[in-house]
Amino acid sequence: MEHFADRLSAAIRARGNAVCVGLDPRWEALPQALRTRHADGKLEGAARAFEEFCGRIIDVVAPLVPVIKPQSAFFEACGPAGLVVLQRLLRRAREAGLLTILDGKRNDIASTAAAYADAAFAGTEIDGQRYPVWDADALTVNPYLGREAVEPFLESARKVQRGVFVLVRTSNPGAGQFQDLSCDGRPLYLEVATAVRSWTRENLGRCGYGDVGAVVGATHAEELATIRHSLHEAYFLLPGYGAQGGKAADTAPAFREDGLGALVSSSRAINFAFSPEDNDWERKVEAATRATISELAAATRMEALTRSSQ
Amino acid sequence: MEHFADRLSAAIRARGNAVCVGLDPRWEALPQALRTRHADGKLEGAARAFEEFCGRIIDVVAPLVPVIKPQSAFFEACGPAGLVVLQRLLRRAREAGLLTILDGKRNDIASTAAAYADAAFAGTEIDGQRYPVWDADALTVNPYLGREAVEPFLESARKVQRGVFVLVRTSNPGAGQFQDLSCDGRPLYLEVATAVRSWTRENLGRCGYGDVGAVVGATHAEELATIRHSLHEAYFLLPGYGAQGGKAADTAPAFREDGLGALVSSSRAINFAFSPEDNDWERKVEAATRATISELAAATRMEALTRSSQ
Repeated sequence: MEHFADRLSAAIRARGNAVCVGLDPRWEALPQALRTRHADGKLEGAARAFEEFCGRIIDVVAPLVPVIKPQSAFFEACGPAGLVVLQRLLRRAREAGLLTILDGKRNDIASTAAAYADAAFAGTEIDGQRYPVWDADALTVNPYLGREAVEPFLESARKVQRGVFVLVRTSNPGAGQFQDLSCDGRPLYLEVATAVRSWTRENLGRCGYGDVGAVVGATHAEELATIRHSLHEAYFLLPGYGAQGGKAADTAPAFREDGLGALVSSSRAINFAFSPEDNDWERKVEAATRATISELAAATRMEALTRSSQ
Repeated sequence: MEHFADRLSAAIRARGNAVCVGLDPRWEALPQALRTRHADGKLEGAARAFEEFCGRIIDVVAPLVPVIKPQSAFFEACGPAGLVVLQRLLRRAREAGLLTILDGKRNDIASTAAAYADAAFAGTEIDGQRYPVWDADALTVNPYLGREAVEPFLESARKVQRGVFVLVRTSNPGAGQFQDLSCDGRPLYLEVATAVRSWTRENLGRCGYGDVGAVVGATHAEELATIRHSLHEAYFLLPGYGAQGGKAADTAPAFREDGLGALVSSSRAINFAFSPEDNDWERKVEAATRATISELAAATRMEALTRSSQ
C-alpha cells in the first residue's frame, strides 16, 4: 500500500474535489420509511437502520467524493450492535473505493493508546498474528496528553501506511477556552500545530505531504491561515462546513497552491438534506453532495487541482 | 439514586479505603491456562478470555474496594465482541456492589458529545424511550475542546446522578508538553482545574463534593498539592499508582482532612500480580489488592476516614 498522503492526494485528484462526507446517523432524523421498518428493535433496530441509511449514502457518494468520515459516537450510542455496523460500513466504504477517516478523537497514555491505534490501523496482535478491527485509513486523535501519547498512534499507522489527524483548533463555538490561551505569547493551538509539523515531517509522501494531518475548524478562517503558515506539509481536515456555519470562501486558506492539502468535511448538511417523509431522500443527499462540491470548486483552488493533475 | 459524590463517599467509607481497581486486560499477560482455553477464537476468543479474567477479578475485589475502572481501549481492541464483554462486565460489577468508572477519555463537539454521554449515562433515546448502553457511574472526559464540549457530559450525567472525571494532569511522562505550558503565567492544567471547579460547584452532594472530578496523575506529587489547593470540592482520580511509579506517600496531598476526596487507581500492579503460569493467580490478585489498600492506609488519611464514618 502507498503512503497515506499519496493515496489521499491521488483520490482527491481522481474525483476532482476535496470533499469528505461525514456519517453522523441520528435516529430522529432518519427517513421515516426507514425508521418504521426498524422501529421494533430498540438499539439493535437503530443500528440496523444506521447500516441501511449509511450504506446507501456510501453508494450515493462513492463515485463523487474521495473520503468518508464515520463519527464513532453515533455508532457507540447503539452499543455493541452499533459497532458491528460501524465495522461493516468501514469495509463497505473501502470496497466502494472511498478512503475512510474514523472520527473517534481517541487519546490515552502510551501503552493504552497503542491498543486504540492497533484497533484502528495495524490490527490487534494475538499470539504474533494481527487481526484487523476498524481497519480505517485514518483516525482523529486528541493531543492533550502530549507527544508521547500521540506517538503510539503514528507507530501503528506507519506499519500499514495509514494517517492520523490531530485536533489542533476545533470547530465548536467554545473551542477557544483552552485552545486560544496564550502560551508564552502564542495560542495553545499553535503549540499543537508545531508538534504536528514535526510529526508529519518524519514521514512525507511523494506528494510532499506527511501522514499526520491537523483538524482545524472551517469556522475560523483567520486561524486557518495562521495555522497553514506554520504547518506547510500537513493535510488539514476541516469539519464544520455547512451546518456548523463554515462557508466555502473561509476554507480557501487551508488549500495550498497545488489545490491539495485540505479535506472539507460536511456531515449534517449532506446526511440530512431531506425531510424525514421524503421518499427520494437519496437523490437529495446526492444533490447536496454535488452542491457542496460546486461551492468549493468555485471558492477554492479546485482549478489548480485540475492543472496539477494534468 | 443518590448524588454521585455521596454514593462514592459512602462506598469509600463502607470499604474503609479509596482504591480503584483498573481493568486493563492484555492477551499476552493473561494466565496461560485461560489463554489456552480461548486460543482458537481470534478476537472473539480474546474477548471471551477478557470476560472470564475480568469477571473473576471483579469477584475477588468487590468485597475489598469501592470502585473498578475498565479501560475502554482494551475492549475496543477486540472489536464488537470486546464491547459486548465490556457491557456485561460493567453490569456484573454493578451487581457485585462496585461503582464503575468507564475510562474512555471521550470528547467531541456538543451534539456529538451528547451521544457519547447518553451511551455512558442516561441511555440513548429512541422515540422518547431511553435505552442504557454502558450505564457507568462515571466516565473520563478530555477537556481540550472546552467547556461547551464538556457540558453535554454533565447534562446527561446529572439526569441519572452519575459523575464525570475530567483530565487535568495526566500520569504519562510526557504529559507536560501541553499541560504544563504557561498560560498567562500559570500552567494550562490549572486553567482546566479552574473550569472543573466551576462545574463541580454547580452540583455538590451532601458530602461536600461535586459530581465533576479531576484526573490527576499519582506520579506528580507537587502538582497534586497545587491542584488540590485550587480545587477543593472535586474528587480526584489518581491513575498511575504502582506500575507507573506513583507511590503511596505521593498521593497524600490529594486527600482532604475527612479522608475523602480521592480515588487511587491501580491497574497493572493488581491485574498482573502473577506469572502467566501461576494457577493461583486469583489469590495473587487478591493479595496485591490487599497490599495496595494497606500501603495507602499507612501513608494517607485512612485513619481520618475511620473517624469521619463513626
